Amino acid sequence: MPIKTNDPSKKSWISVDSNSDFPIQNIPFGVFLTRDDIITIGTRIGNYAIDLGALHQLGYFDGIPLTDDIFLQDSLNDFISDGKKTWRLVRNRISEIFDINNSALQNNEEHKKIVLFTMEEVEMQLPVLIGDYTDFYSSKEHATNVGTMFRDPANALMPNWLHIPVGYHGRSSTIIPSGTPVHRPNGQTLPKGAETPVFGPSRLVDFELETAFITTDANVLGEPIPIEEAEDYIFGMVVFNDWSARDIQKWEYVPLGPFLAKNFASSISPWIVTLDALEPYRTESPVQEPTPLPYLQQKGSKSFDINLEVDITPENGEPTTVSKSNFKYMYWTMAQQLTHHTINGCKVNSGDMMGSGTISGPTPDSYGSMLELSWQGTKPVPLANGETRKFIEDNDTVTLRGFCIKDGVRIGFGEVSTKLLPAVTIK
Amino acid sequence: MPIKTNDPSKKSWISVDSNSDFPIQNIPFGVFLTRDDIITIGTRIGNYAIDLGALHQLGYFDGIPLTDDIFLQDSLNDFISDGKKTWRLVRNRISEIFDINNSALQNNEEHKKIVLFTMEEVEMQLPVLIGDYTDFYSSKEHATNVGTMFRDPANALMPNWLHIPVGYHGRSSTIIPSGTPVHRPNGQTLPKGAETPVFGPSRLVDFELETAFITTDANVLGEPIPIEEAEDYIFGMVVFNDWSARDIQKWEYVPLGPFLAKNFASSISPWIVTLDALEPYRTESPVQEPTPLPYLQQKGSKSFDINLEVDITPENGEPTTVSKSNFKYMYWTMAQQLTHHTINGCKVNSGDMMGSGTISGPTPDSYGSMLELSWQGTKPVPLANGETRKFIEDNDTVTLRGFCIKDGVRIGFGEVSTKLLPAVTIK
Repeated sequence: MPIKTNDPSKKSWISVDSNSDFPIQNIPFGVFLTRDDIITIGTRIGNYAIDLGALHQLGYFDGIPLTDDIFLQDSLNDFISDGKKTWRLVRNRISEIFDINNSALQNNEEHKKIVLFTMEEVEMQLPVLIGDYTDFYSSKEHATNVGTMFRDPANALMPNWLHIPVGYHGRSSTIIPSGTPVHRPNGQTLPKGAETPVFGPSRLVDFELETAFITTDANVLGEPIPIEEAEDYIFGMVVFNDWSARDIQKWEYVPLGPFLAKNFASSISPWIVTLDALEPYRTESPVQEPTPLPYLQQKGSKSFDINLEVDITPENGEPTTVSKSNFKYMYWTMAQQLTHHTINGCKVNSGDMMGSGTISGPTPDSYGSMLELSWQGTKPVPLANGETRKFIEDNDTVTLRGFCIKDGVRIGFGEVSTKLLPAVTIK
Repeated sequence: MPIKTNDPSKKSWISVDSNSDFPIQNIPFGVFLTRDDIITIGTRIGNYAIDLGALHQLGYFDGIPLTDDIFLQDSLNDFISDGKKTWRLVRNRISEIFDINNSALQNNEEHKKIVLFTMEEVEMQLPVLIGDYTDFYSSKEHATNVGTMFRDPANALMPNWLHIPVGYHGRSSTIIPSGTPVHRPNGQTLPKGAETPVFGPSRLVDFELETAFITTDANVLGEPIPIEEAEDYIFGMVVFNDWSARDIQKWEYVPLGPFLAKNFASSISPWIVTLDALEPYRTESPVQEPTPLPYLQQKGSKSFDINLEVDITPENGEPTTVSKSNFKYMYWTMAQQLTHHTINGCKVNSGDMMGSGTISGPTPDSYGSMLELSWQGTKPVPLANGETRKFIEDNDTVTLRGFCIKDGVRIGFGEVSTKLLPAVTIK
């Protein structure tokens, strides 16, 4: 277990603000464009992006079995393919290099100039080439809220929900990093009481507060991943906004599920936080009753205490935090999701992404979407500037954050922040 | 228009059997492993695979703007990215090189030794790296049959079906080429009358007779593809068996659509037949009533007269043709599917694949799945060996074929043939 790297007393020679998500206990992985327009794989401590490609060329990873160009790539896929043992060796070495008691790089001004960038000097990219993206639906509170609104409050959960980590396939090509704006989608919707649909911009654009995990090559076609091994194939997590157009969704989704209502954009935070970094924040997941089928039965604490928040910031306005939730509310764990996904022999590759589904907590201020927060628009959500929101309006920016706090250490994901632009005009 | 390459009187100096799907009028594109274990992009005439990488190195594509290594790749994605103008130049040139009146390669024994392989000498691979795979549900007969079986015969079609080319996202990682066997999937199913699910091998494994089209880079995020341009972004088509586990599907698919019931395997034919090759076989698609919304309205013949057939071959038995259908029965065209897919700004990339959905014709012998052919198992389908099938049994091989015939010319897709192996044992 990577106890040393997570030691709360550990300090880096890079000064880190106490509110930062990126102390030396974090060491996330990402991809960025440097001030010299070079793309590289890196990590972050405090307000500094660290060029791992350059560190490797300078010999700081000597002794770890890595190819020469493993960090000089535009995605983490190959590094993730190297497997958990290698991820851990690299993270441990980074932890050593930047330890306040290690002077090697600390006192080498020439190397520091090559390796360190302030966050203002870099442009974060999508960290992985995502081959396949799956979204689950694993928050009982969210599934219950949606079932209550659209079906029968007494039978809000579908009969399969307590037996299956329900999931569906999403679209990889429209997963974008924090900072990339999104246009309000056009599409077909059925106006209330109408019998034929109309075409135009969606009127009900929503965020979904989610996390997602990134996998490594986990199996061959036809072979499932046993639940006790599942976490070994999870590289790390990001915070994820699964943009949704509720009116398009309502008209299109029966019987084959959401499609254009979801695939116009899905935004992720650019730093992947490893499961090793999250280790101190493990916590129990909700009791599962009925007991799942044997292939889904797990031992130990398989969830994590990750605080999640959502801000809405209107154009030229200040942010309002509209939701505070937590990853620990998830009914189905990531291990259960991954094992279920492969129980039929489905192949999982390096860089695949699996979303949690909207993470709603038990109280109305912890709901993970405007659909729930405004209860289908019946309870407008107040903003700091005196306005209200039922759904997201043009030029609003939606910002999701995730962070863990324990023993005086805060580690986090940073944010995924996305501006909703007006719809494009269809000629 | 590529009239010359499709001229029915055109002959190649490679002799082609009259029943072959691959006369000089076809010129499909694929990827294969040669007898020297080299992977290359190629085409096919008669029983010969032609190494386009070698042809290019020998100068046969001089004058066409191609990078040196465009055919020395393990997928067609980069070539497809080059766009329609380039595909056409290359196909026209191949048509010239192999024309019976062209002696350049015909009389160069040394070059022929390098360039030509019999089909027995090569191993066909997946032709593209599929980034995203979408499956539509565009046969009215199939949707009506399913709706009749599972819902109300009087209201078999969902209210959205006549307005939307209904589609959903599938999984790319499990798309496999013809010849790769598939294990019967394990999974959760709900026995009749039971309240809790059981775990084990699916009992209702089915094929789905489909075609699929492969796209090129078509748009930027946020911009739709107008319907009059849509066909320009379709590189070509394959025949596609969308393996399905009906009992897993029934239990899992509400409300978010099919997932593990579909993603254990999807098999495609290895040669991509271009739209240029299919041009002579254009035909009208069914009249659409009600008229679709303006963004889906198209002019001209947007369908193709492609005969489709399905064989079931039991272990050590002879094949029985269980279905004869046709692509022209599709209610929604490929152009409508692609335009609808991007109307919300969804980005489409080179190598993306879009399935038609099961293509059922109007008569019971033209249905595109065992679910329909055996009408949920109530009408067992007779095989040549005296056995019957309600669904696919272990060690059966399912073979799908597609071909067009007109003016004495037959062009086709070859076949996608897949053996169903028994389920793996879950420890």
